[in-house]
Amino acid sequence: MNHGFVVWFPHFCAKIVINMPSISQKGQLMPESPIRKLVPYAEEAKKKGVKVIHLNIGQPDIKTPQVALDAVKNNTLEVLAYSRTEGSETYREKLAAYYAKNDIHVSAKDIIVTTGGSEALAFTMSTVADNDDEIIIPEPFYANYNGFATAVGVKVVPVISHIDSNFALPPIEEFEKLITPRTKAILICNPGNPTGYLYTREEIKKLAEIVKKHDLFLIADEVYREFTYDGKEHYSILQEEGLENHAIVVDSVSKRYSMCGARIGCLVSKNETLTKTALKFAQARLSPPTYAQIASEAALETPQSYFDQVKEEYVGRRDLLIQELKKIEGVKIGVPQGAFYCIVELPIDDSDAFAQWLLEEFRLDNETVMVAPAAGFYASEGHGKNQIRIAYVLDKENLKKAVHILKEGLASYIG
Amino acid sequence: MNHGFVVWFPHFCAKIVINMPSISQKGQLMPESPIRKLVPYAEEAKKKGVKVIHLNIGQPDIKTPQVALDAVKNNTLEVLAYSRTEGSETYREKLAAYYAKNDIHVSAKDIIVTTGGSEALAFTMSTVADNDDEIIIPEPFYANYNGFATAVGVKVVPVISHIDSNFALPPIEEFEKLITPRTKAILICNPGNPTGYLYTREEIKKLAEIVKKHDLFLIADEVYREFTYDGKEHYSILQEEGLENHAIVVDSVSKRYSMCGARIGCLVSKNETLTKTALKFAQARLSPPTYAQIASEAALETPQSYFDQVKEEYVGRRDLLIQELKKIEGVKIGVPQGAFYCIVELPIDDSDAFAQWLLEEFRLDNETVMVAPAAGFYASEGHGKNQIRIAYVLDKENLKKAVHILKEGLASYIG
Repeated sequence: MNHGFVVWFPHFCAKIVINMPSISQKGQLMPESPIRKLVPYAEEAKKKGVKVIHLNIGQPDIKTPQVALDAVKNNTLEVLAYSRTEGSETYREKLAAYYAKNDIHVSAKDIIVTTGGSEALAFTMSTVADNDDEIIIPEPFYANYNGFATAVGVKVVPVISHIDSNFALPPIEEFEKLITPRTKAILICNPGNPTGYLYTREEIKKLAEIVKKHDLFLIADEVYREFTYDGKEHYSILQEEGLENHAIVVDSVSKRYSMCGARIGCLVSKNETLTKTALKFAQARLSPPTYAQIASEAALETPQSYFDQVKEEYVGRRDLLIQELKKIEGVKIGVPQGAFYCIVELPIDDSDAFAQWLLEEFRLDNETVMVAPAAGFYASEGHGKNQIRIAYVLDKENLKKAVHILKEGLASYIG
Repeated sequence: MNHGFVVWFPHFCAKIVINMPSISQKGQLMPESPIRKLVPYAEEAKKKGVKVIHLNIGQPDIKTPQVALDAVKNNTLEVLAYSRTEGSETYREKLAAYYAKNDIHVSAKDIIVTTGGSEALAFTMSTVADNDDEIIIPEPFYANYNGFATAVGVKVVPVISHIDSNFALPPIEEFEKLITPRTKAILICNPGNPTGYLYTREEIKKLAEIVKKHDLFLIADEVYREFTYDGKEHYSILQEEGLENHAIVVDSVSKRYSMCGARIGCLVSKNETLTKTALKFAQARLSPPTYAQIASEAALETPQSYFDQVKEEYVGRRDLLIQELKKIEGVKIGVPQGAFYCIVELPIDDSDAFAQWLLEEFRLDNETVMVAPAAGFYASEGHGKNQIRIAYVLDKENLKKAVHILKEGLASYIG
């Protein structure tokens, strides 16, 4: 049981064993953020006075609704106490009303308020799957799904979706082929991070059919619900009749109200056994954060004009992004219909190396860009190596400049 | 794979199979809060107009320091953004200074800010243990340790401590007997919830020796550090020399500043491999809550006078509690030297039934008390069944009244 290592002190020719308890295998397997390894290169560039334009982060630059900020500033708490484990009663009631406005009919008892969508996903995975069970996810997918799956010992089984179809739902037979006795759920992100793809009603119905046929859960991460473009409407799995026992929605205030730092999300399901079980996982961590619930409850009063403006801004950015990307020779674009991400295929072999090169070597008027290599959004080895993810959460001027830098960088890299 | 159930509609003599995907075994095994099952009885009593005095909750009635509340009220954020995954740089720097004042010498890089002590514990367990690995914990222990262990698939191996010695550390041979190749860590809570016991320097040294000998981690939940009585001083495992690779401290602002609703804690260790691995689990959930970090950073400016007053108040309550409990015939008391909990042994067989009876049947001037049956704080079947946990987080007048009701209730119950 000695996992120690040995240190030699040559002057004394002595050997000292330093004991070191061992880290879990799970801990060793935990994936790092796909962007994290690039951070030191970005920091190094900045130290040298280079301006780095970030196309890699999902932190919107949009202002948080004033009504939410004010609610926290005007709070009159004297004791910052625990809330209820499932979230405050008034917040959950208002959340149910918010869903009703979106034609999703659930009641407060179907909602567990969580610490970010992250926690909703972690509770969901733990509630539906045991160690070595499987969850099928169309790839590319939000990289942290891998992290949560590893943390709870669940195996991610990917189904490839393709840039040529803008990452539409893969043929349902591809899912069916992968179903085993260990399969517990299918997980989708709709609209998608990192694809920006918005599933159609027909695609959701196909998924509904297959999960009912095989008694699986259908988990949908719907945190980008409000961000749909070109007149397209979001269709929630909770709107699908007959799916009451199967549908679990993971939601969050992070992107909706540009409140990523609140860390408030929720898990929504009409399956009572499921919510009761998820609540036991929630009980262990006592309650979601209180200030953030105050902000989130107030955020529900955000006027429609806020969303209209934000959506207009994102559509404008997306259009500009696509227009500028099209000026680059040899690129393929997964045109986003929602969210604020876009996968771009480049005429290169290894976007990891290219992203690092941009940070280390390339400058245009002393500026460069940071992009997210897409391989981290795939579970299948080797996929996405020529793709990057761009988040269009910066203003148009910088976005245009960033794509221009990318274009020039690419030309120089290939040349 | 059909886990459906069958519903009979007798009028039609027809049978409909309702499909229902199955919940994980882990989810089924997740323990419920030991108090939760009593809540409906308390609610029922309140509905009937009965006043229920709560001796069962760990939510302090103490006011949160004004400096923390003001920092949030005066914040000037326009975008409520993610913080860094490991917590804001300034907060971690100031936390390191706080520890230095407590003679614990760590730097910001040894600290990961978490969403409550709860998350620090979850990250720790995942980082040190795999599925079916074992962690030894002296019992009675904080009930949610069971929850986190179940969630990450880790087996809790209890070592019994006894009320007759105020729940002092069990003989170290008892620990040694339980160590197997699957043992990864020993976990203590110091001062203890639910025992109020404060481990001596000698006891910590014994634990240090055994974890070094067997290459285990020593995890200490030190969230009640400030609450030590009778001139006794807290000795942190991080103060123990030679334990740098083994010691992991779980900490929280919840009780220290009466900020349970903030949901800010931290994990502290000088073992770099450990903190780097724990950080990967943290990355998956992006960041701890931003408002709560603002409050927690400001709380570090809380004047010493606040702690002096709070401590004086708790000591006064403890003394009153013990004095009043001693008036009850046949009770044994685990006299607390820290925290604000106390285990009491009653001359009954089943404190679950007694607690329920108090809520359902017993009234003194239309009042009754709610206590926490202690069995939920033990992992060994059958232990603690004649014990209850009392939290002295209510004012002296109510505390005195509550113990009087308990005394009269007990007499009536036994009679």
